Amino acid sequence: MNEFEIIKNYFAPLSIKEAGAFSLSDDAALLQIPEGSQLVVTKDAIIKGIHFIGNETPATIAAKLLRVNLSDLAAMGAKPYAYFLALMLPAEIDDAWLKDFAGGLASEQEIFNITLMGGDTTHTTGPLTMALTAIGFVAQGHALRRSGANIGDNIYVTGTIGDAALGLQVAGSGFRAENEVDEYLVNRYRFPLPRLEIGRQLHGIATSCMDISDGLMQDMGHIAECSGIGALIHWERVPLSEAAREKLLIVPGQQETILAGGDDYELLFTAPPQAHEALQELACKTSVNITNIGSVKEGRGIKIIDKNGNDIYLSRNGYNHFTGPE
Amino acid sequence: MNEFEIIKNYFAPLSIKEAGAFSLSDDAALLQIPEGSQLVVTKDAIIKGIHFIGNETPATIAAKLLRVNLSDLAAMGAKPYAYFLALMLPAEIDDAWLKDFAGGLASEQEIFNITLMGGDTTHTTGPLTMALTAIGFVAQGHALRRSGANIGDNIYVTGTIGDAALGLQVAGSGFRAENEVDEYLVNRYRFPLPRLEIGRQLHGIATSCMDISDGLMQDMGHIAECSGIGALIHWERVPLSEAAREKLLIVPGQQETILAGGDDYELLFTAPPQAHEALQELACKTSVNITNIGSVKEGRGIKIIDKNGNDIYLSRNGYNHFTGPE
Repeated sequence: MNEFEIIKNYFAPLSIKEAGAFSLSDDAALLQIPEGSQLVVTKDAIIKGIHFIGNETPATIAAKLLRVNLSDLAAMGAKPYAYFLALMLPAEIDDAWLKDFAGGLASEQEIFNITLMGGDTTHTTGPLTMALTAIGFVAQGHALRRSGANIGDNIYVTGTIGDAALGLQVAGSGFRAENEVDEYLVNRYRFPLPRLEIGRQLHGIATSCMDISDGLMQDMGHIAECSGIGALIHWERVPLSEAAREKLLIVPGQQETILAGGDDYELLFTAPPQAHEALQELACKTSVNITNIGSVKEGRGIKIIDKNGNDIYLSRNGYNHFTGPE
Repeated sequence: MNEFEIIKNYFAPLSIKEAGAFSLSDDAALLQIPEGSQLVVTKDAIIKGIHFIGNETPATIAAKLLRVNLSDLAAMGAKPYAYFLALMLPAEIDDAWLKDFAGGLASEQEIFNITLMGGDTTHTTGPLTMALTAIGFVAQGHALRRSGANIGDNIYVTGTIGDAALGLQVAGSGFRAENEVDEYLVNRYRFPLPRLEIGRQLHGIATSCMDISDGLMQDMGHIAECSGIGALIHWERVPLSEAAREKLLIVPGQQETILAGGDDYELLFTAPPQAHEALQELACKTSVNITNIGSVKEGRGIKIIDKNGNDIYLSRNGYNHFTGPE
């Protein structure tokens, strides 16, 4: 199939909900912006062998690609609207692959109420490569930022931390879903949960916010740098899933994987202590844990201590997608 | 350099004009939309060895990538605002390359009054790959479409046709700028001129519009299909540059290259005969030729005739970026 046939057969059907996508047949898409809104735009690219292993199903790759970008919208407090997809396909990609991939996108569109509105399909002599641009809206002045954390604020995370990094270890070593723990962790790596509802509710509560893609420590460093503050994190407060706790018992020395591993796509944010009750209500309403893991301090740098108050030293700070795991 | 250093050193400086880019340091960008406007979004990806040869300077590649996308905005009648760039860099890309590439983007930003507002930088084991999303605005209801051509409309093109396809032939055969004709044609291939001003002025005049990226014949076919009409094109009216005329004399049989070759990025549009005077004024005001090359007919298909009224048959209809030149 050539480019036009691929678009017509697999991708145009994903665009039907939005008339401004023109069935992907025009030069560009036309988007209607709700009055009083600002546009939030994010873009992420993923490459086989770097951002995903290649043993995932096409639908799984589609889900991760979309969710990673939606997580960026969540971190800004935005509501998703549309996405644009550039697909660079190597020769081995066939109809069955495209069908499963497009099917994956269709399911995700249902879950997150977002529509494909344009893109580009081309072949490549390199590995399978995809770039996605996601567009959302936020009420004027309501966007969450990485800057804004104040001394004395609490530091919060949603969900649990470290599952994805542990899941990547399992998935990378020839995973065959041999047990529930492994399956849970691999699913956490493959299907991140963009915290869109919580992100939208954090306006007026959070003083800074981002999503954890490069690892808790490195991403806390980003907030600290953007806000000009330091941070103290308590290891025993970092929320772990049951599966992660089991892994910690079986394979010791995974503390660093949890603190510095990437791909969790949970929200990391700061809020003043008086917001604590509102956050507990929000956790209750969304059925997602929101955990206070530390506090914003004067100075620079991120310090993490164990339950006895002793410093924990990490040999790495996080995952850098450009240089690969250190 | 890792991802963060590359962004900080080369790309963050390109974002300073827009506060909502947050110096490329936040999760997403925040864009302010003028009231009464609709958003126009387009996305194109280019890969070394497929969409560009690889012997171009990095600044040249930057220019082409941006202009190809701006041409899509022009074809919708939109005013450019911001762009987002995903860069997939193979190991051979060094500081000098990045510096020249970013310098090229900086120059283009000045020319087209557009700002980098986000993106993603990652390495790849494949060829140099880039995906760009361009965002522009159009007054509510003013967007140009591919559908809408009416029987009896004239068919118009801006500028001259076929230069880029002839230029690609020259550039692909180890071009060293040996003469002015070759240099002109290669520059037309490398530096397309998005017809933004004309595009914006075509509201209320053009009944359909697109930019010529796949070749005049194939792209006329797109308008015909979207509008449900046929078209008659007169070969002797198709505007050629002096350089293209010289090439036609030296290398015969290039008629097909001109009619079916891609990459011109001129506008192709239809308008009723009574709009002819307004179009001549627009051509005068913008110093860009606007040429009537044929007319919209009942039925389907594109017919092209020579000056004696005889059909011209082409063995191919245009350039398909997915399967490559046929």
